Amino acid sequence: MIKHTKVLLEHGSGGLLTHELITEVFLPLFRNETLERLDDSAVLQVGGTKLCFTTDSYVVDPIFFPGGDIGSLAVFGTVNDIAVCGGEPWVISTSFIVEEGFLIENLERITRSMAEAAHRAGVYIVTGDTKVVAKGNADGIFINTSGIGIIKAGREFSAGRILVGDAIIVSGTVGDHGAAILCQRRELGIVSEVISDSAPLNGLIQDLLDSGVEIHFMRDPTRGGLGSVLVEIAKQAELSLELREESIPVKEEVKGLCELLGFDPLFLACEGRVVLFCHARDVERAIDILRRHEYGKDAQVVGEVKKKGKGRLLLRSSFGGMRELDLPVGELVPRIC
Amino acid sequence: MIKHTKVLLEHGSGGLLTHELITEVFLPLFRNETLERLDDSAVLQVGGTKLCFTTDSYVVDPIFFPGGDIGSLAVFGTVNDIAVCGGEPWVISTSFIVEEGFLIENLERITRSMAEAAHRAGVYIVTGDTKVVAKGNADGIFINTSGIGIIKAGREFSAGRILVGDAIIVSGTVGDHGAAILCQRRELGIVSEVISDSAPLNGLIQDLLDSGVEIHFMRDPTRGGLGSVLVEIAKQAELSLELREESIPVKEEVKGLCELLGFDPLFLACEGRVVLFCHARDVERAIDILRRHEYGKDAQVVGEVKKKGKGRLLLRSSFGGMRELDLPVGELVPRIC
Repeated sequence: MIKHTKVLLEHGSGGLLTHELITEVFLPLFRNETLERLDDSAVLQVGGTKLCFTTDSYVVDPIFFPGGDIGSLAVFGTVNDIAVCGGEPWVISTSFIVEEGFLIENLERITRSMAEAAHRAGVYIVTGDTKVVAKGNADGIFINTSGIGIIKAGREFSAGRILVGDAIIVSGTVGDHGAAILCQRRELGIVSEVISDSAPLNGLIQDLLDSGVEIHFMRDPTRGGLGSVLVEIAKQAELSLELREESIPVKEEVKGLCELLGFDPLFLACEGRVVLFCHARDVERAIDILRRHEYGKDAQVVGEVKKKGKGRLLLRSSFGGMRELDLPVGELVPRIC
Repeated sequence: MIKHTKVLLEHGSGGLLTHELITEVFLPLFRNETLERLDDSAVLQVGGTKLCFTTDSYVVDPIFFPGGDIGSLAVFGTVNDIAVCGGEPWVISTSFIVEEGFLIENLERITRSMAEAAHRAGVYIVTGDTKVVAKGNADGIFINTSGIGIIKAGREFSAGRILVGDAIIVSGTVGDHGAAILCQRRELGIVSEVISDSAPLNGLIQDLLDSGVEIHFMRDPTRGGLGSVLVEIAKQAELSLELREESIPVKEEVKGLCELLGFDPLFLACEGRVVLFCHARDVERAIDILRRHEYGKDAQVVGEVKKKGKGRLLLRSSFGGMRELDLPVGELVPRIC
């Protein structure tokens, strides 16, 4: 049974309450094998072709931020959900819910940004919808993007394929997107240089997969950050994962902001990063390929898969101490994406 | 150039301003052949299989209404968009935007309704997303559903295939959904028996197509009603369409309500009706098949395709007079779906 009678902001945080909502409300009613896998995309077979299908609604506040806007975020977010399933993003739908009084010039700016983002990621926006609600019934604009990708034969990824000994690799610095949004929202008088990492990951991931490097599983750490995604994977695959704190790439500005505000960059959202589980023997090649790409130049091995058993995420601190991390309970930054 | 500087409710009505928004803002930027067809779904080819892909966001107010709720509406709406393209609905995604404070029991009721609707329509809900926004930043709940259908070989429908002489058939009474929502919203003290026609059309349409009846084009008249859909088709295909007023099936309660409030049932939304362009020689068979189905028992031939040329919709009144109908300019009933 779900503990609350009303929906809280935390139910949308990607943390513990989101997990509870999915497992206690949605899964028991929408019962089917594909959904129960709880991947970022549904993997489907049609004729001889394997497809993946994904959806996300974007409610980010503010809608324009350093490094992107709600439009590019919506395109890249869906592109990335497809890419981490091993799919090549193909077509995207876009559905707008717009508040009465929203400036047409902002709608045009967002539409242009989506068109450019789609062009950059090599996908087509093929169908759409627009709804308008009265002033006060929405906050500016919300965008849903759904997308279909094509998965080449032999490309199979699942948490179940992760092996003990696999390296955990992150493609770049973590928490940039969360920090960028935070700086825009808190009236703290902080003048920050933090720019969102929002970017399409399909090119980077294709390069890696085409190289033949043995990747077992991928996810993009968005809401809830790297920490939440790894806790979920640890539990799902019943594996003990160990992160080395000093290996986790965090920008100095993000680190400073987190110290100031009491946040943990591990649980701040990324929007252009992928975490990969890679066979130990291929680690150097993988890092090499990632770093040659514009969105992977800060790629790092951040930890290792230690053993089967109780699913948990452990963090080895710079001083050698070890602590277990769990899904965050509160809502760090609402409407991050 | 678009005439307004701000988004108006009418931009979401499915009428003239929606058309303007699509053709002046979205199409020039999201330029591609599939989108430019402006069908309810994008038709795509992958391997040897033809798919259709569609998206819609639902913002209906109130969320529970006689004959349905936002959940079943969202499932049937997407199922119907696929069915009218000749596709067999296959998988659906669902994405919720929920306002903080929304009752969990209502979320469960809506989720159950979606699950039942999916079961009734024979589709699977395979992927999803949930976002929560702070109190006051949305109105209860908005739901996006996107869906993929599979189109059997040889099933080709487009406005371009419509022939002069084709019969225009409607599968049931028009305006029921719009009238049902209207009664729930207007504080007019009207006690009405009108029930939404919200229903899945895929079974009905499959029966018809399997029978070999020659159908040239189909659409489901939702926002904007039968009138708007036929005006759009007339313009797109450059055909003169003629409706016979006395043949259009309208429930007595809906007629009464429209007379009272000054609405035209032709421009009130349906959510479980299809309008078909059928080869004249197959009309009787088509009507017969439709009427045998629970969602088609009030099917009627309502008009005819008169000639090529200027795209226009003409209404022959019960008294023999003729007038041209155009897309409605105002917003009849906001947040109808």
